[in-house]
This record gives sequence, C-alpha cells and structure tokens, in this order.
Amino acid sequence: MSQPVSPRVAAEKPRGFIDRFGDVARTEERIVRTVGAVYEQWGFERLETPAIEYTGALGKFLPDTDRPNEGVFSFQDDEKWLSLRYDLTAPLARFVAENFDSLPKPYRRWAAGPVWRNEKPGPGRFREFWQCDADTVGSASPTADAEMIAMACAAYDALGLGDSVQIKFSSRRVLDAVLEKIGVAPDAFATRLIVLRAIDKFDRLGRKGVELLLGAGRKDESGDFTKGAGLDAAQAKAVLDLVEAGGGARAEVLARLADVAGESAIEELRLMDAALAALGVADARAAIDPTIVRGLEYYTGAVFEAQLMDANGAGFGSVGGGGRYDGLVSRFRGEPVPATGFSIGVSRLAAALNTQGVQSDGPVVVLVMDQARAADLLAMAAELRAAGVRAEAYLGAAGMKAQLKYADKRNAPIAVIQGGDELAKGVVTLKDLKLGASIAATLGEDREAYAKAREQVQQEIPRDQLATAVKNMLAR
Amino acid sequence: MSQPVSPRVAAEKPRGFIDRFGDVARTEERIVRTVGAVYEQWGFERLETPAIEYTGALGKFLPDTDRPNEGVFSFQDDEKWLSLRYDLTAPLARFVAENFDSLPKPYRRWAAGPVWRNEKPGPGRFREFWQCDADTVGSASPTADAEMIAMACAAYDALGLGDSVQIKFSSRRVLDAVLEKIGVAPDAFATRLIVLRAIDKFDRLGRKGVELLLGAGRKDESGDFTKGAGLDAAQAKAVLDLVEAGGGARAEVLARLADVAGESAIEELRLMDAALAALGVADARAAIDPTIVRGLEYYTGAVFEAQLMDANGAGFGSVGGGGRYDGLVSRFRGEPVPATGFSIGVSRLAAALNTQGVQSDGPVVVLVMDQARAADLLAMAAELRAAGVRAEAYLGAAGMKAQLKYADKRNAPIAVIQGGDELAKGVVTLKDLKLGASIAATLGEDREAYAKAREQVQQEIPRDQLATAVKNMLAR
Repeated sequence: MSQPVSPRVAAEKPRGFIDRFGDVARTEERIVRTVGAVYEQWGFERLETPAIEYTGALGKFLPDTDRPNEGVFSFQDDEKWLSLRYDLTAPLARFVAENFDSLPKPYRRWAAGPVWRNEKPGPGRFREFWQCDADTVGSASPTADAEMIAMACAAYDALGLGDSVQIKFSSRRVLDAVLEKIGVAPDAFATRLIVLRAIDKFDRLGRKGVELLLGAGRKDESGDFTKGAGLDAAQAKAVLDLVEAGGGARAEVLARLADVAGESAIEELRLMDAALAALGVADARAAIDPTIVRGLEYYTGAVFEAQLMDANGAGFGSVGGGGRYDGLVSRFRGEPVPATGFSIGVSRLAAALNTQGVQSDGPVVVLVMDQARAADLLAMAAELRAAGVRAEAYLGAAGMKAQLKYADKRNAPIAVIQGGDELAKGVVTLKDLKLGASIAATLGEDREAYAKAREQVQQEIPRDQLATAVKNMLAR
Repeated sequence: MSQPVSPRVAAEKPRGFIDRFGDVARTEERIVRTVGAVYEQWGFERLETPAIEYTGALGKFLPDTDRPNEGVFSFQDDEKWLSLRYDLTAPLARFVAENFDSLPKPYRRWAAGPVWRNEKPGPGRFREFWQCDADTVGSASPTADAEMIAMACAAYDALGLGDSVQIKFSSRRVLDAVLEKIGVAPDAFATRLIVLRAIDKFDRLGRKGVELLLGAGRKDESGDFTKGAGLDAAQAKAVLDLVEAGGGARAEVLARLADVAGESAIEELRLMDAALAALGVADARAAIDPTIVRGLEYYTGAVFEAQLMDANGAGFGSVGGGGRYDGLVSRFRGEPVPATGFSIGVSRLAAALNTQGVQSDGPVVVLVMDQARAADLLAMAAELRAAGVRAEAYLGAAGMKAQLKYADKRNAPIAVIQGGDELAKGVVTLKDLKLGASIAATLGEDREAYAKAREQVQQEIPRDQLATAVKNMLAR
C-alpha cells in the first residue's frame, strides 16, 4: 500500500552516533564472541538487562556532568522518568537486588551490549558504544578482584593481543588511608572528588599540574580555571608521594606504598598480588600503579585499567577497566553487598584493532547475463552454498561491466559467469578476481607474463564441476 | 570513595521490560549466531545502525498507535526529537540513503539487535525485543523476494526447526488489483488501511468478522465498536473471495488468484514461485496465502510471514516475517529504490524454543575449605581451564554445605574438594553432582545399590591427575 507523498526527509543520524559495518562490525563481533567465551570458561553466566531503566535505579555516577541531564538520555513515560543505561554495572546492581534471594552467591555474570552517554559529541567521542563486562557480586575477597584482572589478561590473550595490553591497578583504600593521615574527613565528599580527579589526570598533566589541582586550582592553556581541592603544601605532598610510588615489580611498589600509606592500607593489594601469582599473571602483565583511580564515583576498593600499547610501545589508551563497587547494590537493599567487575570497551578496542586494516573476502558472485535465466543462477548459488561456499546470485538489473564492478565492491574472490555460448556448451566461466586484481597491479608492463597469468585468472569448467572448481580456486 | 547515604531505591524495572539470562539468553545468542551465519553464507554483510535516530527519519509506520507518541520512545535533545528505533528496517533506509553512492547495489545487509515499542505492556507483550534481519536494497526483482523466503527456510533449518516452520506469502499488489476492480481509489488511504487490517484479522475473526469490518463495522465481545471500511456487499465479496483463495500447492493458489485478481496482478507471485522452485523450496515449506498482508504500512509488494507449529501441528504463531518496501528509501531520496527484507523475531522464537526447558551445565566448582589457601584453589581452577574445562574457584565466605548448595544452583557437574587431610595426602576429592542428584532421586529406597552408586559419585584422585580425572568424569 503506497504512502502519501511526503516532503523529502533528511538522511542523517544524530551527532555522536555511528553506523558499524564491514571490518568494524566484524571485529566488534569477534571481540564479543572471543571475550564472552573466556568469561564463560571462567564460570560466568550471560545476563542481558534492558536498555531502559528507571532513572532513579541507575543513580548518578558518571564522571562527566557537562550535559543538562547529567550525561544520561532520559525521558518521561506515564509520569515516571526512564533513562537509557550508561553502563552495564548500574543495571546489574538493580537486577541483583531485585532477584537477591534466588541468585547463587557469589553471583557471576557477564554481559555485552550497547550503552549510551548523553555527552557533547566530539571526534572519537561517541554517544553509543559497546561494553563487554564480567562481574562477581557477593564476594568481598580481594581474590575476586585479582580474578578479574587475570581473566582480563586471558581475554586479551584470546584476542591475540597478549603482551601489548598491560593492566594497571591500585585501590581506593590506599588513597583513603593517605587522606585520613593528612586530615581530610571521610565525609568531605567534594574535596575527595577533586583529589580523585586530580590524580586521574596525572598521566596528562604531570606532577606540577596535579599539584595545582590539589592546592588552589589550575588555569589551563585556554585560560579556563579549575578549582582545586584546597590542600596545603604538606597535604599535597603526601598525595603526590602516593601518586609517584609506582614503577617496577608489584613487590617493589607494595614496599613503597607501605611507607606512604601504612601496612594496613595495602593488605588488599598484597592479597591481590598473591592471587595474581597463583593465577600465573606476571608483573609485566599486571602492575600496581597508584595513579589509577578511575573516574566513576561508585568504586570503593580495587580499581584497574587495561592499557593497549602499539608495536612501538606507545600507548593507544584505555581499552578496559573496572574495580570494586561495594555500595552499588546496597543502594537498593540497605545492607552491604560487595561486588567487583571488569568492563572491556568493545568499540574502542575494535577501533584499535582495525588500524591494521585487514579486509575480509566477500561472497562468490554468480553474474546474471540473461534475466530470464535468473532461476538457473539462483540454483548455482544454492549449489555453492550447499558445498559450504559463501555465495549469491546478482539480483540487480545492470549489465556485465556493472556486475563485475559490484563483485569488486563486495570484495568477491570469484565471479561465476554463464552466458548463452557457455550454456550451449554446458560450461561455466570462473573469474579469479583476487588474482586478477593482483596481476593487474604488478604485471601491467610485462605483456607476456601478463598474458600467461591471465589464463590463470579465467577458467572454463564443466557445469557439473562448479562447486569443486570454485573450492579449488578459493584454496589456491 | 563511599557515597553519601541515600534513601533506599526500589529495585524494579519499567513494565514491559525483561532481564534475559540462563537458557533464554543462551537460546537468543544461539539464534542470532546461527541465523547470522546463514545470512553471511548467502552473501549478506553485517550492518549495525544506532539505537537512536531522528524521529523524522524513522517515519510513522507502526501498526499500533494506541500510545500518545505513536508507539515509539521519543525524547528531545538540543531541540531536535530523537527516537529509539522500532524496527531495523527504517534505520536501514536512512543508512542506504545517506551512503547511497558508495554502497554496492543491490546492497545486501543483515543486522541483529534490540528494537523498542512504546506499547501498553501486557502478558507476552514486551517493549524491548530482538530482531535478526536480512535485506536486499536496490533490486526490484521478485527473485529477491523469493530469495528472502528461501533463506528464511535455510535459517529455520539451521536452527533445527525444519518442517515445523512454514512460510506463508502473498503480495499487496494482488489486493491492489482487487481494490482497483471494485473501485476503491489508490489514494483512499483510510479505506485501504481498514481493509488491510480486516484481512490481517482473518485468522482470528474468520469470514464473518472480516465481512463486518469490510462493511459497516464490528462490535466485539466487550462491546467495543471498530469502524468498518464501508464497502458494499459486492465489494466485500470480491475481497473475501481473494482472502479465501488460499490452500494447497502454490500452482493451485496461483490458478485461483488469476481468476479473482487477474493474470497481470499475479505475475510477481509466479516469478517468486519459479525462483523458489529453483532454490529447492517445496510447496509445504512456502505456501501462497492471500490472508497474509502484514500490519506495517510500509510494505508495497510481496509480504511473508513465518509460522511455527508445535509437535501437534498447532500454531505457536508468527516467528518472523517481512516483505517488499519500495517506498521507504525514496522518502529520503525522492527516487524509487526498491527493497525487500526478512526479519526473524529472536525473542519470540527463543520463547518458543525454550518451552522445551533444556538446562545447560554450569562450570566445575573448586570448593574452598580454608580461606588462607585460596591461591591454591585458584591455581586448580586455572589448571582445569587450561585443559579446556569450564571451571571456577568458589570466592564467597560460606561453609561447605552452602558451597555445595552454590554448586547445585550453578548446575555444576563436578565439585572439586581438597581439605586439610587431602592436602596432607596429596589428593583431591571429585564429587559428581549430576550422578549424585540422579541416584538421590532414584535409589533412595535401595540401600545397597545406593551405597554402591555412592562410590561412583565421590572419587579420591592424586592431585597431579586433577585435569585428566575431571575430564574423564565429565565424559561419563
């Protein structure tokens, strides 16, 4: 039933959103499949919560609050406020609280799916992206934190990234101990948050910048002023000593941290170190780094971050992270429910992996010389698929030249052609498009070699040997 | 950093949304993976568009409009209206229009993901569900429609559903021809829509009910009156003759339709029948049924629907459908762009498959007798995983009994136990929980047989044979 004619609509999507296809879609799919298999192997069960939650159930834990509704897409429905989830952790907390009595405890789940941030869109800053998380809810043991780190290493290994990913971890409790020592009260939330965010910027601003943010404040290159935490020089020094205690093997960092924060503050990190050793995670794969604090406000203990290095050892940045969030479930239950988790940034990691620019083969394409014979060509494609070959018949109305261009655009390895002459002779022509492209690129000048190679490119084969011949050509 | 104490939040999700886990999540994942592999094999490429689009780009094509904002979740952002996609087809049209020049034509894509409907929630009526679609954009050929049906058959086959799914198809053009014959003008959109929806209800209301809806209108059991299309008796009869032309082999239905609608109106269906035959799709798998019209307003030609039957031949209902929508892309481009597609209702199909209630094995669980030895037990779990066994160490703080209950809740096949005595002897105890459960259920009365079987359940093995022994036990 045709529609009333309407004024032309603009074919555009909202800023900050992207379409994912080709190698990006393939890589993201591979990441979720591979990482999900590792999570399963470690005893986690898949759970998918809805994209939409009550706004109040999600809470306000985002680091960026420069948008009117605090970084979250929200809308009203039947007078209640709903929001799109901004991560997979806040909905997990709601789920666990809702199903607390029936769940095994500890509850181990994994999840993969899109999350949304209502941030100001910018280059490389998307408002929709995929995460792939694992969480253990109901274990207060630092062993559970260490297991997250070890499993993340196994996941990056399974993706073939091995040593190019390093996990850095620390604990908010170490910072808590230092803050207590210098007299910042546990309920001085505003001050503590500024300190946290100052440390988080150590990588970018260095000691001098962080010192300003810990003190009176910092004016950046553009002249914008960020208010500081208002610590005095001695207080700031204590925090900076903590921040600079990293480097080297885990045991070395632990020794330095014992000096700065006291032995009781690092008990958790010591247990994590022991568990990592038991799980075979070397110092080089998981290092203690006190500059790691993570922006999200809900973390209460261990925090970790996965950093990807390129072949030259330069950092590509964070491709995953997580930590302990003992307060998130108790928001609902009013009793402590310890939890820890790790989240792999699928979209970000895919972008890193795609810089290699591998292009996958398209399907074998059966060209159509005569539309009246479409059924025959469908049958050829079906025959190829039955033999395990990815194949399709061309379904458009264009001529031979455009069809070959189509096959090219699809990155088809082979075109199958049967014109009238070939039909009469009972044969089919196979054209090796990959070989064709490579000789066109390399042999353009050498006529004789070119002619010889061309014979390889185009082959006439009996119709009844179609599947075998295509498979042979694909194998060469 | 701990949060300020906040009043307790309710652990609930909005109505009409569900959490998916366990067998539901596993089945949905299997459907997407299996169907996606078939779509790939047939030469379709994955494309994932964002969940959020400009409201105007999506258009208003939903059959249900009983919610204030016409069945769609919408919200304002920077003064523009955004909506959550209600299907995967409308965003595809936007994508194709936006990237028209760079895409191969025909453009063949597949997609899988959640869609949202702002409908009144009710039993079995969800506001978020998954679809898994394939579409061919840029082919006007009925062969492309037939390919969709054949590929859908292949997809249901790959899921093991084989003959329990039947595709029923027809064409809106047949109805158009009948409407033209009885003098309903092509631009009488309101009348045509009422006729369409009346036919759509034939299954439920039968001839009498549809006749009323084609005429003056119908009062249902609850007394609600639905306005009719206002056709006279002769006009209504022509439509009813069309609706009742189904039944039997495709050739038989075609012969009847030629009488009712005229030969030129069924040319498309004839070509589809020929292509289906070439693709090896039997009459029993894909039948022509003129009661199939599909509710969505954007369909312009072929329409199809996949119906699942249970073991007794009773209908479970629609588990997929699609059709030709030649007008959807041209909304953006102002030139005709023919397109056809098929959508599998993943959530609905998973619900049907899950009625069988298969439960999958959980991980092997290494129990913890002494928290101080957690590292040893982590190493055992790591050893099992390295041998390819799904395994975890228990990370909670509970005692032996609760840990066995945990293993039970996880549906663990084996518990691995090493207490102090066993450590001293260099052995480990394996407990076959599946065998344990089955003998507890069947042998409770026969003491001797029970005692003998119990020996099988619990085995003491040398510590260094852990992985081999677990694999042997899993294999029995």
